[in-house]
This record gives sequence, structure tokens and C-alpha cells, in this order.
Amino acid sequence: MKTRAAVAVAAGKPLEIMEVDLEGPREGEVLIEIKATGICHTDEFTLSGADPEGIFPAILGHEGAGVVVDVGKGVTSLKKGDHVIPLYTPECRQCPSCLSRKTNLCTAIRATQGQGLMPDGSSRFSIGKDKIFHYMGCSTFSNFTVLPEIAVAKVNPDAPFDKICYIGCGVTTGIGAVINTAKVEIGATAAVFGLGGIGLNVIQGLKLAGADMIIGVDLNNDKKAWGEKFGMTHFVNPTEIDGDIVPYIVNLTKRGADQIGGADYTFDCTGNVKVMRQALECAHRGWGESIVIGVAGAGQEISTRPFQLVTGRVWKGTAFGGARGRTDVPKIVDWYMEGKIQIDPMITHTLKLDDINKGFDLMHAGESIRSVVVY
Amino acid sequence: MKTRAAVAVAAGKPLEIMEVDLEGPREGEVLIEIKATGICHTDEFTLSGADPEGIFPAILGHEGAGVVVDVGKGVTSLKKGDHVIPLYTPECRQCPSCLSRKTNLCTAIRATQGQGLMPDGSSRFSIGKDKIFHYMGCSTFSNFTVLPEIAVAKVNPDAPFDKICYIGCGVTTGIGAVINTAKVEIGATAAVFGLGGIGLNVIQGLKLAGADMIIGVDLNNDKKAWGEKFGMTHFVNPTEIDGDIVPYIVNLTKRGADQIGGADYTFDCTGNVKVMRQALECAHRGWGESIVIGVAGAGQEISTRPFQLVTGRVWKGTAFGGARGRTDVPKIVDWYMEGKIQIDPMITHTLKLDDINKGFDLMHAGESIRSVVVY
Repeated sequence: MKTRAAVAVAAGKPLEIMEVDLEGPREGEVLIEIKATGICHTDEFTLSGADPEGIFPAILGHEGAGVVVDVGKGVTSLKKGDHVIPLYTPECRQCPSCLSRKTNLCTAIRATQGQGLMPDGSSRFSIGKDKIFHYMGCSTFSNFTVLPEIAVAKVNPDAPFDKICYIGCGVTTGIGAVINTAKVEIGATAAVFGLGGIGLNVIQGLKLAGADMIIGVDLNNDKKAWGEKFGMTHFVNPTEIDGDIVPYIVNLTKRGADQIGGADYTFDCTGNVKVMRQALECAHRGWGESIVIGVAGAGQEISTRPFQLVTGRVWKGTAFGGARGRTDVPKIVDWYMEGKIQIDPMITHTLKLDDINKGFDLMHAGESIRSVVVY
Repeated sequence: MKTRAAVAVAAGKPLEIMEVDLEGPREGEVLIEIKATGICHTDEFTLSGADPEGIFPAILGHEGAGVVVDVGKGVTSLKKGDHVIPLYTPECRQCPSCLSRKTNLCTAIRATQGQGLMPDGSSRFSIGKDKIFHYMGCSTFSNFTVLPEIAVAKVNPDAPFDKICYIGCGVTTGIGAVINTAKVEIGATAAVFGLGGIGLNVIQGLKLAGADMIIGVDLNNDKKAWGEKFGMTHFVNPTEIDGDIVPYIVNLTKRGADQIGGADYTFDCTGNVKVMRQALECAHRGWGESIVIGVAGAGQEISTRPFQLVTGRVWKGTAFGGARGRTDVPKIVDWYMEGKIQIDPMITHTLKLDDINKGFDLMHAGESIRSVVVY
């Protein structure tokens, strides 16, 4: 079949809207009509050429929602008409990682996904004889796409595609980092570095978890109102304080009898390795945990004095918020439908596929929290 | 009163055995006759001048065992004749850290202890008018010493001083890192970097915890027999393998259906920041935890790519094995008395106070696991 798609023809070039060939689902695969897709910084990271593992030409996009329109042989958990969210982190429920109960990082199709291919080692996208690669196993910048059954979450059919697509990455990453990775408890103090889409979702996750103090840190004062909308209690602009951000937050978090200070949980949502260090070092002595969410540039390293760890701080990271896609994503969709979490205010721009490059421009200009393409 | 002590008169100089003045216990303090003390790398670290917080002249030593010979006003939990182990990490049971239930790093007397002083800001040691500083709140290189009540663990009076003194630091640090910090579970795989006294105690902690694979890593092949004595199942000398230690351990730990590999828990017992990185990076993707135990040189930093954390590895540290001194140290003494853990083979040398500098020489030469001074 044919499908319209935004193709990343080469690093650093705008996406090109074109008609591409799409082969139908093979065994264990499903064909999905994408109804809406978010544009995420990770798409930008790869498109820019900064991603050392970027492959071109490819169809980017990994934050989608849509409807199953065909299923391959052997597919049992999905049928035509199901409303779904594609998963860049699959959940096979059979590999040692899934069975460990300790990680969401299913390894069933890791090797081929990293190569831009389906699990059988081939691509479903092409233009004539030229292969086009898949991206993060999703390729939601195509109106139709094929995914393995294990990488598709079936969700509430009443949920609006143009909102829940964001659960395919940003919402789950932010909320999941709080709930699954940090396991924040009621009454905790937390600091969130970087109030983009991920940071705001961390904030609403912290509110959901019952944190007492939710400190947002951003260089842009416009983010104060954004943070407060989702539950932030304190805003800090590091350029507007005296001295370093670390002692500032340590002081801010001294409460009651505790005159040591430091946040119980800190989250880096910037991808800046210097900020990751600050986030660790303003975690509370003895028990503070710092969670790296942001993706750093190729070859960049985090560092600190080991004394920071020896005195009880814990350095962790999270991918897809530690969420198991097929198990947890449908729950987050339900939370949205029940009003437990907000998504609508974060979708600042809705575009047509033809205008997808405008979404990247808005991101560069810092004007959007999230742009969504509706097919 | 007068007491014999080994005094560190200046950085880099041998200890000098002399008679010093010791003031008796003030309110909340106890006078202890030290019967035996281990010589630990941390004493050496300070004596060498490498410790940026080292203060001289001081009476070093922090791994002792002895008997209470006098108690100050208000002391309720200890009496004359009690057998005790001095604690460089106190346990006041009242500060926010103790009450947090999340850390052993009691902060009740942190500031004064770091200054080489008793909690009231004075020293009990002197020679004539010249003050001599306490060290790590213990100063067990003195035959008699004064400690605050909250920094003294009361232990089984049948236990031999020349063995249980080692529980005052090395044994508890190693076993505690496994039990309290890593919380290793039955069937786990683990890698221990550096098979000195701490490393061997980590190994016996892992055996106690029921780990399946206990991999010891050391540059010295003589350590193979030592590791095996305490439960090590595999030995690796990094200079005798092809390629890097990280992929080597990742391969070694591939078991059954798990073809990803990596140890569930890794421990750095070297103080070498490059080794700390290796220990982190050979932890299992998705859930492996790496615990920093070794003390790095002043100003040295650990580093890694944040991707290591984002893909599920956790970087932690431990001080005094995460043990609460007054609560946990008596239990470890009991474990020793019940034969659950071994200490005797690790005490390779027993010396008189006059020969204490020989203990440092043996450490430098790598000939001792632990030297103990018996008064």
C-alpha cells in the first residue's frame, strides 16, 4: 500500500512530505493508522545529526496514537479497530528483562529496532527499490505504520488521539520517572531541572504522588506560570539568585528539625551534563535520589566526587519513565480520562502533516511545550 | 589521667609513642580502656597527608574494642565494665537523619567530630598546654580514650577484643554494604573490585546473603586463595584477560536465558575512580547497582556516560556499610560469636603499640589483610 509520510532524508535537512510504499503486517505484526503524533526533542536530536545512532533515510516520530487496521498471522492481543499507542519500548513479557520484574527495558527486539528494522531484519517502508528505515520501532510521522504486536498498547477507545499521543513518550516519561523510578512518597521534597514538556510532566507526577515541595528550576521565567499550572510550589531561575544553585536548593529544602537540607528527589530534564551534576548534588545527604531523564549529547559524561555517593546520594536514570508499555500506558490514558492528570494545556500547537517542519521550528524557538500533528 | 598513645605529630611522619594527658569524661561521655585496635587504610590516608581534612597533632585509630572504665554525668545506656566498640558513625536516635529511617549518617556531632573535637568543642587529649586532636571521634591508638555515649556500641562481653575490634570499621563496612546498602537477595550475581580487607568482607557478606556468583577482581593473584576462603566463586585478574574488564564481567555473568549479562551488584573497594567507573558499567542493564565503598583521593571525580544510568544502572555509595552503630554492630559481634562470619583469618598480624608503625609498613607492602594492635 501507499502512505503519506514525513521522511527524514538526511541529517540536518527538513523533513520531506511524500508518498511511500508500505508493506502490510507480517506474522506477529499489526498495521496501524496513525491519527496523531507528537513531535519530541528526541526526533529533533536524531534529525539534527547529533544522534550518533541516527540512520537515514528514515521515518521519524515515536509519540503516536491510532487505530489498528490490519493484523498479521498469529496476533492474538489486538484486532482491527482497537485504539492503540505505539511503543518504542516494547513489552514482550517473556524475555529475561520483562521477567525480572526489575526493569521496563524489554530486550526482545532491541537489536533490530536499533538498526531501524522490524524484528525479522527487514523494513516495511520503501520508495521503489530504496529502503526507508523505521525509527525507534514506531515511525509515527507516517499516516500508516507497522509495528510488532509486543510494541503496541491497547487503550480506552474514548480517548482523543490528539491528546493521548503525548502519552506515547513525554507524559509517561515524566510521570513514570516519579512513580516507577523514584517511587516518590507522600510528603517528599523534590526539585525538577528544566521545565519543558518532560519537566512539567514530572511536576504533575510529583503532585499526583503527594510531594510537599515541588521546586522547578529553569532559566526562562515564563516557565514559572507553566510549572504552577501543574503543581509546582517554588520556582528558581539560577541566573537570578546569588551564588550556586546547589546550596540555594539545599537551603530552600531545610525544613523543621532538618537543618541539613537537600531534596529527597531531584530530576534532570535538561540533557545538560552539568545540570545532571547539580541535580545530584542538591539531593539530600543520606538518602536523596537523583534521576537522569534528559538525553545528553554524544560522548558527554557526567561526573561528581564519589563522596557525594558515599554520603548517601543515589544516582539513577530512567527510560520511558520505567513504564511497561502494554501494562502501564493504558492506565495513564485512563488517568487522563478520569481527570487525574492534565494533557490538554501542554499541547500548545496542532499542525497538519504538511506543516510538520513548523513544529520543529516552534521547538527551536522555545514557543511550544508540545506540537502535535493530526493526520 | 595519663595514657599511652601513638601520636600523629605531622603528616607523613611515623607515629610517636608517648604518654599524653587525658581528661576524664564530661556529661554524656564515657572513658574507655581500649584493649585492641585495627590499623585501617583510612588511618594511613590521613597520616600520609592525602586527607584534605587531616588535622595534626592527633591520635588516630577508629577500629577499636575495649571496656568502659568511667561514665560521665547523665550517661544511661552504658556502665563501668561494659564491653564496647567505639563508633566513628554515632547513632543518637534523635536527629532527623536517625529518625528518617533512611540513613545511618547520624548528624548529631558531625561538625565537632570533623574538627577533631568532642561535641562540646574541646579536646580531652593534651601534652602540657598543647592540645592533641581526636580523630574520627574515636582515637583508638590511645590506650584510654573518651567518647560520647551516642558513639559507643555495647557488645557481647565474651567476644575477644583482638578480633571484634575489626567490626569497628572493616567488617561492618563490607558486610553492611551488602546487607544494608545493596540489600542483596538470594541468587544474585555480584562482582567485588579490590580484595583487601573490605573486599573480603563484602565477599563474606555476599555469601551470607546467598549470592550465586561472587566474582572477585584484583591485580594480585595471591588474593584468589583469600577470596575463596570467604566464598568467592570466580577470580579475575584484569591484567591476565584479553580486553577490558567490563565486557569480560558482562560475559561471565550471562546465565541461562539472560544473554545480556552484567552483575546484579558490584562493589568498588579500591578507592580508584577508574575502577569505580568499571564497577558501574559492568552492572546489569536495567537493574544493576554499583556501590562505591573505597575512598578516593582528594579532588578526584567519578564519571560515566549518563546513558549508563538511563539504561537502568544505579550508582550508590556506602559509609560504615549503612550500619547504625549501636543497633547493628552488636548483632555483627553476635554473628561472629555464632560462627556466621569469620574474622580470625583476616587478622594476619598482631602487634604491640610500640610496633604500630610496622603495621603501616605491612599495609604498604601489601603483606597484611589487617594488623591489630593489642594493648
